[in-house]
Amino acid sequence: MSKKIFLIGAGRSASTLVKYLLEQSIELGWQLTIGDQDTEMVKTKVGSAKVNIIKFDVNNENQREKEVQDSDLVISMLPARFHPLVATTCLKHKKHLVTASYVSPEIKAMEEEAKKNGILLLNEIGLDPGLDHLSAMKEIDEIRNTGGKMLNFESFTGGLVAPESDNNPWHYKFTWNPRNVVLAGQGIVKFIQEGKLKYIPYHRLFRRTEIIEIQGYGRFEGYANRDSLKYLDVYNLRGIPTIYRGTLRRPGFSRAWDIFVKLGATDDSYIMEGSEDMTHRDFINSFLTYNPHDSVELKLMHYLHLDQDSPIIEKLEWLGIFENTKVGLKNATPAQILQHILEKKWTLESEDKDMIVMWHQFIYEKDGKKHRKTSSVVVIGDDSVNTAMAKTVGLPLGIATKLILTEKIKLSGVHIPITPEIYNPVLKELSRNGITFKHNLNPA
Amino acid sequence: MSKKIFLIGAGRSASTLVKYLLEQSIELGWQLTIGDQDTEMVKTKVGSAKVNIIKFDVNNENQREKEVQDSDLVISMLPARFHPLVATTCLKHKKHLVTASYVSPEIKAMEEEAKKNGILLLNEIGLDPGLDHLSAMKEIDEIRNTGGKMLNFESFTGGLVAPESDNNPWHYKFTWNPRNVVLAGQGIVKFIQEGKLKYIPYHRLFRRTEIIEIQGYGRFEGYANRDSLKYLDVYNLRGIPTIYRGTLRRPGFSRAWDIFVKLGATDDSYIMEGSEDMTHRDFINSFLTYNPHDSVELKLMHYLHLDQDSPIIEKLEWLGIFENTKVGLKNATPAQILQHILEKKWTLESEDKDMIVMWHQFIYEKDGKKHRKTSSVVVIGDDSVNTAMAKTVGLPLGIATKLILTEKIKLSGVHIPITPEIYNPVLKELSRNGITFKHNLNPA
Repeated sequence: MSKKIFLIGAGRSASTLVKYLLEQSIELGWQLTIGDQDTEMVKTKVGSAKVNIIKFDVNNENQREKEVQDSDLVISMLPARFHPLVATTCLKHKKHLVTASYVSPEIKAMEEEAKKNGILLLNEIGLDPGLDHLSAMKEIDEIRNTGGKMLNFESFTGGLVAPESDNNPWHYKFTWNPRNVVLAGQGIVKFIQEGKLKYIPYHRLFRRTEIIEIQGYGRFEGYANRDSLKYLDVYNLRGIPTIYRGTLRRPGFSRAWDIFVKLGATDDSYIMEGSEDMTHRDFINSFLTYNPHDSVELKLMHYLHLDQDSPIIEKLEWLGIFENTKVGLKNATPAQILQHILEKKWTLESEDKDMIVMWHQFIYEKDGKKHRKTSSVVVIGDDSVNTAMAKTVGLPLGIATKLILTEKIKLSGVHIPITPEIYNPVLKELSRNGITFKHNLNPA
Repeated sequence: MSKKIFLIGAGRSASTLVKYLLEQSIELGWQLTIGDQDTEMVKTKVGSAKVNIIKFDVNNENQREKEVQDSDLVISMLPARFHPLVATTCLKHKKHLVTASYVSPEIKAMEEEAKKNGILLLNEIGLDPGLDHLSAMKEIDEIRNTGGKMLNFESFTGGLVAPESDNNPWHYKFTWNPRNVVLAGQGIVKFIQEGKLKYIPYHRLFRRTEIIEIQGYGRFEGYANRDSLKYLDVYNLRGIPTIYRGTLRRPGFSRAWDIFVKLGATDDSYIMEGSEDMTHRDFINSFLTYNPHDSVELKLMHYLHLDQDSPIIEKLEWLGIFENTKVGLKNATPAQILQHILEKKWTLESEDKDMIVMWHQFIYEKDGKKHRKTSSVVVIGDDSVNTAMAKTVGLPLGIATKLILTEKIKLSGVHIPITPEIYNPVLKELSRNGITFKHNLNPA
């Protein structure tokens, strides 16, 4: 019998997923239904392909029940907060669910019932989380299964602009949610280095970076993510001397970004008075000391000990932060104003290509010797619609869907892609679709 | 008829208040009742004086009703959160209430009923808030009443150690709540300078200080408080080009304190793993980069660009932060651990004297000329019980109580001490009790 897939949400990062599902539908005779608030937008994505498009509201209980009941598998691209609702409906009607979101405590609590009903709630199978789990766990399992002892795990991912579209001194454009980029790293960062727990406060984070080189793509710098420690349990790495996860940028980005952190311009905790009538220049000036004789530029350089010919000043000037352009945002926080200013400059143009970079390092001891393995992948987007982001999120989701419906994956319960039954076939098919990890092995 | 006063709470900072009320009770024939959870502690404070001491629980409704009803005026030294409860009971029985706490929205909302019943809810009449209102408003009113236009208002207060008890390189000991000292300045600081709103993020706050000199007591440095802007309304200063309130320390304190801020050691937002078994040295090391060859001292100097012979290093070493002494606190935040370490060194010994310093600056235009007036007071404690803190909190409270009961203050409603009817007689009697502001007037 023809399998029925119900995809909920087909926005910005779903283009590759929709394309993949359409191709597979033709090949395997699936019936695809796409539910979204905006059916016109979906139609432009789908073209003339044979697919059922419906206006869908997840909070409409009757509609949700009907559509889930009528399918064999549900893929949800909705924001994570809706997933307990969708999963409950899937459990009720014994349908599999695939998402790219983190397992929430509510989803975790459905483990037993999902197992009992023989259905799979597969989560965290996009890019990050997703591709990182697949690629890291394969290596970690291989090291451990052949008698190696893990000493060091570092993992970095970045959403960047492709070299061919890189035309600004930051070597960066927004390819993910700009708000998350502006707020990145706020709070406390924890990791373990040589057995010692280390903490980095936000205002030091962007000065403690690591340099990573990827053959053919040059140098990157990584700053620490907040969440390294939770991977001790996820990857069963308790006791490992060093664990560190981070975000990649091009070298020089972090040091310049740190200027905004130091000024207080990324603060999202209070509304700035008069933000509507403020200019970019007023915005920056409000963080600097009063001095009627010095320019805003000079005060900033003096305050943060920058040389006039510093590449940081070039980056800041390029962003237009010293210009007398109106912000025009009402009751905005500093972070919202900064995002607004950055969005004028860091937006991907329609012909621009983005780039996803993922890099892992595994240091381990085996037969009395230390080894260092790296595993990395670089994915370049086709254009501003078929982005590297859409590929790396959508293909793991689509491939997992196929493997479940063709019964190559026969798990039940709540899962993330850290078992060989999932990562081996998904990585194999990703490779057929142009996403292949490269490996290096050296003595450490 | 003999007036009855009910004082609720007679802890640490109430010693001068109790002494003052006992003296006035003898002179004016008052009856004083003191209610506290700890009646033994109160007995040691009161000695052989004739006073009614009762074990009092503010949440016991019957007891609260009875004691309030049986009095003419209630003074509450309880934490501010209990004041709406106490004030409601006072309103019900038509009794005046005096506190040193900020007016909360709940108290503010009682304005009309208090007026209707002819009772006075007098708040913010301790040190800060209290003495600052009294002394600043007197000057501001005088300037405005004689045709002056306020251009600049700066106000700094500090609780410090007296010069004769100052025996450490920080020139500081805890005289107020240590937790508030460790957390001081977290969040965003706002003030107005020359008509421009200025914001200072926490990690820059302790590097943007002002130097203030007070004749006979030398130099102090002030860092900005969070709340300068709310005084625009409180003192009716909307439109003033510069307003700035701050906290005083001895020069060099802030720059050294900034090291803890930069490390992240004042963070109160997360629990440090293994805090119980951690040493002081481990604590500091957890904020520094890993390096098996360098000492914690060297790593800190390198990380924060300090010279080995810097006075900052001397201050840090004096605190014992590099020692292998166990912290011994379970599940503690960095701020809690730091407070614990500091309390071993910064505690007032029984023979130590504390010092309260308050300094205001008023710049104004009058008859086409600019004038600069300063107003300051320094109060030294007698010992670690009869502290300057207890005097400067207790005397304004006690004096206001006397003025209300002797009908020198006849206000009703919710008030803070910013009207001549309050500040003139209170300041006069404070002066008789050794708290006299000194003034300086110069062309600006």
